[in-house]
Amino acid sequence: MDGRNIAACSYVETEGKSLKAINPATGLTLEGEFFKANESDIEDALHAANQAFYEYRNLNKDQKAAFLNAIADEITTIGEVLVNRASAESALPLGRLQGELGRTTGQLRLFANLVAEGSWVDAIIDTALPERQPLPKPDIRRMLVPIGPVVVFGASNFPLAFSVAGGDTASALAAGCPVIVKAHPAHYGTSALVAAAIIKAIEKTGVPKGIFSMLYDDAYAVGAALVQHPLTKAVAFTGSFKGGMALINLAQQRKQPIPVFAEMGSINPIVFLPQALANQAEELAKKYAASVTLGAGQFCTNPGLLLAVKSPALENFKNYLQEAIAVVPPATMLTGGIADNFAKLSAQIIDEAGVEVIAVSKLINNDLKNQSQAKIAQVSANDFIANPKLREEIFGPYSLLVVADDMEELEKTIDVLEGQLTVTLMAEKQELQHYQGLINKLSDKTGRIILNGVPTGVEVCAAMQHGGPFPASSDSRFTSVGSTAINRFVRPLAYQDWEQELLPDELKDGNPLGIYRTVNQKTTKSHE
Amino acid sequence: MDGRNIAACSYVETEGKSLKAINPATGLTLEGEFFKANESDIEDALHAANQAFYEYRNLNKDQKAAFLNAIADEITTIGEVLVNRASAESALPLGRLQGELGRTTGQLRLFANLVAEGSWVDAIIDTALPERQPLPKPDIRRMLVPIGPVVVFGASNFPLAFSVAGGDTASALAAGCPVIVKAHPAHYGTSALVAAAIIKAIEKTGVPKGIFSMLYDDAYAVGAALVQHPLTKAVAFTGSFKGGMALINLAQQRKQPIPVFAEMGSINPIVFLPQALANQAEELAKKYAASVTLGAGQFCTNPGLLLAVKSPALENFKNYLQEAIAVVPPATMLTGGIADNFAKLSAQIIDEAGVEVIAVSKLINNDLKNQSQAKIAQVSANDFIANPKLREEIFGPYSLLVVADDMEELEKTIDVLEGQLTVTLMAEKQELQHYQGLINKLSDKTGRIILNGVPTGVEVCAAMQHGGPFPASSDSRFTSVGSTAINRFVRPLAYQDWEQELLPDELKDGNPLGIYRTVNQKTTKSHE
Repeated sequence: MDGRNIAACSYVETEGKSLKAINPATGLTLEGEFFKANESDIEDALHAANQAFYEYRNLNKDQKAAFLNAIADEITTIGEVLVNRASAESALPLGRLQGELGRTTGQLRLFANLVAEGSWVDAIIDTALPERQPLPKPDIRRMLVPIGPVVVFGASNFPLAFSVAGGDTASALAAGCPVIVKAHPAHYGTSALVAAAIIKAIEKTGVPKGIFSMLYDDAYAVGAALVQHPLTKAVAFTGSFKGGMALINLAQQRKQPIPVFAEMGSINPIVFLPQALANQAEELAKKYAASVTLGAGQFCTNPGLLLAVKSPALENFKNYLQEAIAVVPPATMLTGGIADNFAKLSAQIIDEAGVEVIAVSKLINNDLKNQSQAKIAQVSANDFIANPKLREEIFGPYSLLVVADDMEELEKTIDVLEGQLTVTLMAEKQELQHYQGLINKLSDKTGRIILNGVPTGVEVCAAMQHGGPFPASSDSRFTSVGSTAINRFVRPLAYQDWEQELLPDELKDGNPLGIYRTVNQKTTKSHE
Repeated sequence: MDGRNIAACSYVETEGKSLKAINPATGLTLEGEFFKANESDIEDALHAANQAFYEYRNLNKDQKAAFLNAIADEITTIGEVLVNRASAESALPLGRLQGELGRTTGQLRLFANLVAEGSWVDAIIDTALPERQPLPKPDIRRMLVPIGPVVVFGASNFPLAFSVAGGDTASALAAGCPVIVKAHPAHYGTSALVAAAIIKAIEKTGVPKGIFSMLYDDAYAVGAALVQHPLTKAVAFTGSFKGGMALINLAQQRKQPIPVFAEMGSINPIVFLPQALANQAEELAKKYAASVTLGAGQFCTNPGLLLAVKSPALENFKNYLQEAIAVVPPATMLTGGIADNFAKLSAQIIDEAGVEVIAVSKLINNDLKNQSQAKIAQVSANDFIANPKLREEIFGPYSLLVVADDMEELEKTIDVLEGQLTVTLMAEKQELQHYQGLINKLSDKTGRIILNGVPTGVEVCAAMQHGGPFPASSDSRFTSVGSTAINRFVRPLAYQDWEQELLPDELKDGNPLGIYRTVNQKTTKSHE
C-alpha cells in the first residue's frame, strides 16, 4: 500500500504532515503512512488533468468503455484485501462491504456500457434548408461534451461506492473528464488501494495518465484549494449540509463559478396511511426498525422521520417498534467524530419541547469503541411544525415519529418539510386514490417517491434519481446515482455549418456509430 | 391597451406610480398608462401561480399544446398593431419586428409540437426483478416534471421573441410551469398587448388562470422581490452581466436557492484563418460589417471581437471593412440609456493603451434621437492580452480587431477569453485540418461554434445551443433558444414500486402515449 499523493498517475514525495489511518472499533493505528498534499501537488494534479483533457475526451467510446471495465477488473482482483482494509477503517461489516464492492464494479460496468452504446450524448441534428425564405436555415448539430477536470470528494459512509472509484469518479470519467480525488480522511488505506487499481487500469489500457490524481488531507485546506483552482470545472461531494454549503460558497465566489454537485442532508420522511397501519402494524414496525438501523443508520437515505395520524393501530405499531428496536445490536460508527456527534445530538433531542423517546436499543459493554445506540423519539405534529430544529438530520440510527391529530394536520407537517432525497408512502392500495393531494405535496418535496418500500438501498440503474430539492442536494436537476449521473459533467455544444470530416463521429452524416439521434425532430438510428 | 398589472389573468388596480412609454427616436410619450406593481400584486401573482400549478401540470399534453398554439394564434391576430407599437417603443424597423413576430409564434408552435409529441420528458423505466439475489430489484420509473412558478424578465432587445410570450415563457409553460412576467420598462405597451393575447388564449382553452401574471416596474424593486419570493422556483433573464449577476446573487442568498438562467455578456469572437483572408478579403469584410451593425449591434450574438494574424491580406480586409462601415446608416438605439452608454463606452475605448479606431460610420443630423455610430477599433494581441477591459462587451455596433504577430500569439489571445455564446471560424476548407488545437480551444470557450457564417441570427430549432461557459450565461448546461430550453424548468422524479393507476401516463405499462422511452436500457416506442 503506497500512501503517497498521486499526481497524474505518479506517486509523488510530499514533504509535510504524515497521516495515519485509525480503526474506529479499536482506536488503534492501522498500517500505512499517508501524506497531507501541498500546493505543488495540487498544481501538478490540475495542470496534468487539463493537459490530458483533449486527448482523453477525443478517445473513441470503446477505448473509454474498456478503461472503465479495466478499473472494475482491477478492483475485483484486489477484492479481498480491499474489503478487509475498508472494514478495518470503517467498522462496516465484511458482508456489507462485499456488497458495496459489487455495487462499485457494477457501477463502473454500467457506465462502460452506457459509453459503449453511445446514445447518451443526446445528438441532435437539424439539417440545412438553403432555399428557405426569408433566410436560409443553417445546418446545426448538437451533442453533450465533457466540461473538464472534476474534483471528487470521497464520502465517509461508502468507502468504495462513493469514493475513489465510486459513482462520481465513474460518471466523470465516462463523460470524458479527468478526475482529481480528494481521499476521505476516514479511509486513507482503502483509497490508496483503489487508486492503485485505477493506475493499473490506466497503464493497461493506455489512456492518458493525467486524467487521474488523488490527494490526502486530514482537514479542509486541500479540498478548498481544489475547489478554488481555476482549472477545476466541477465538484462532486456527498456529505453533510455544512460541508456541502462550504464548498458551494467557495465555488460561487470564484471568478468563474463552477457547479458543486453536493448530496447533503435528508431525513427521508415515511408517511403511514391509516389502513396500512391498521392492517400491517407488526410487519411495518419490523421493516422500519431494520431500515432505520441498517449500517448504524449511516445512509443518506436513512428514514429519519415517520408521519402518522394518531389511532389505536399507531399505538400497536409503536409497541412492535419498541420491541424491534430494543434487540438491535450496537454497531461501531464510521469515525469517532460521527459517533460523538450522534451521541450528542440524539441525547439533546429530548430537550426540545414535546419530544420523548419511545424506543431505544441497549448498549452492550464489549470493549468496542464508538458504538451507536438506536433511538426513536416522538413529538406531536404541532410541536414539530413549530420547531425547525426537529427537521435537521441526525446522522445515525435515529428517527422521529410525528403524530398528527388528523390527515389535515399531517399535510401541514409536510408543508414545512424541506427538500428530500426520498419520500415513502406506506399505504393499502384501496386507500391510495383518496390521497392525490397528499401525493402531489410529497412529490414536490423529493427526488424519489417510494410506495410500500424502504428508502435505504439505492438501486444503481438508468431510472434512479438520487438528488432532491434543496437542501437534499444542491441541484435537484441532477442525480449522483445511476447512469444519468453522467449529465453532471457535460454541456451541450452546437456546431453550425461545420465540415463533415471535422465533426465528432456522433454528429456525422451516415451515423457511423449507429447511435440513437434526433434528426430533424425524429428519433432514429438510421445510417442515412 | 390595458396597462394595469395582471395577477392570475385578472387586471388589478394598483395604487402608486404611474408609468409612461417613450418613443426613443422622438423622445415623446406614447399612448397608454402603466402602473408600478406593489407588494400585494406580487403576492397575488405568486400565490395564484402556486395554486394553479398542480392543475396545470396535470393537464394532458394535448391541452398544453393547444394552449401554446392558441397564444401563437392570438398574437398573429394582433400582429399589425403589435409590430407598430413595438417599433414605436424600440425604434426597431417594422421588417425586423415582423420577422421577430414570426419567430415568436414559431417558437410557441415548436414547443406545442414538442409537448404534443411527448418524448421530451425523457421517460426511463427499469422494471423489477423480484427474484434477484442477494436483493430483489425494485421497479423504478423516472421522468422530468415541472418545478413550479417561473419568473421571466422581458429583454430590451427582443420586445417579442425574448419577452412576454418569448422563448422563456413558451418553454416554461410547455414544461408545465406557471409564469410571472416582469415586463421590460422599454416596452410597456408591447408587453400589455402580448399579455392580453395570452389571457385570451387562456380563456379560450380553459387552462387555469393562475398560470399567468405580468407586473410592471421602471426600476429593480419588483424584479428583486419576485426573485426573492419563496414560491418562485426559477428565473429566466436575458440582459447585461451586471443585471444577471445581481439576480443570481439574490437567488443564491435565498433560504432555498433557485436557478437563475441568465444569458449575459458575450463578445462572440470571429477568428480569420490566413487563407480565408487571402482569398475572400472583400466578401468577408462586407459580411462582417453587416453582422456587426445589424439592428444597431443590439444582439447578444453581435461579433464584438475579430482575431487575425497580420498580413497584406488583413490590410486589404481592413480597407474593405472601412468602406463598408462608412456607409452604414445610423440607427436609433433601443433606449436613451443604451444609446448614452454605447456612445460613452465606444468613445472611451481609444483611451486604452494601443487602441485605435480604424472604421467609423457617419452620423446624419436627421432630428432622430439616440442614434448610434458604428465603430471598429484595432489593437495588438499583446495589448489585448494585457488589458481585461478590452474583453468587456460594448452593447451596440462596435467591434475590436485584434492583430496577432503569428498563430501562436493568436492562440494565446484565445486563452485569455472568457466564456462566449458563439465563436466563429472563417476558414478555407483545406487549411482547417491544420488547426485542430485551435478548434479545441475555441470549442472550450463557447456554446456554439460556427464555420464561415455569422453569429447573429440564432436559429430556433432542436439542435440550437444558446448559452455558453460563464459569463456568457450563468449555466452552460442549458440553452435559452431552441426546444431543449424546456429542460431549464424541469427536474427528474423517480417513482419506486408505484401503483400503475397512479403513475403519470408517460410511465405506465403499455406506453399509452406512444412516446419514446428507455425501457430496461433500450430506446423504444413499443406498447408492450
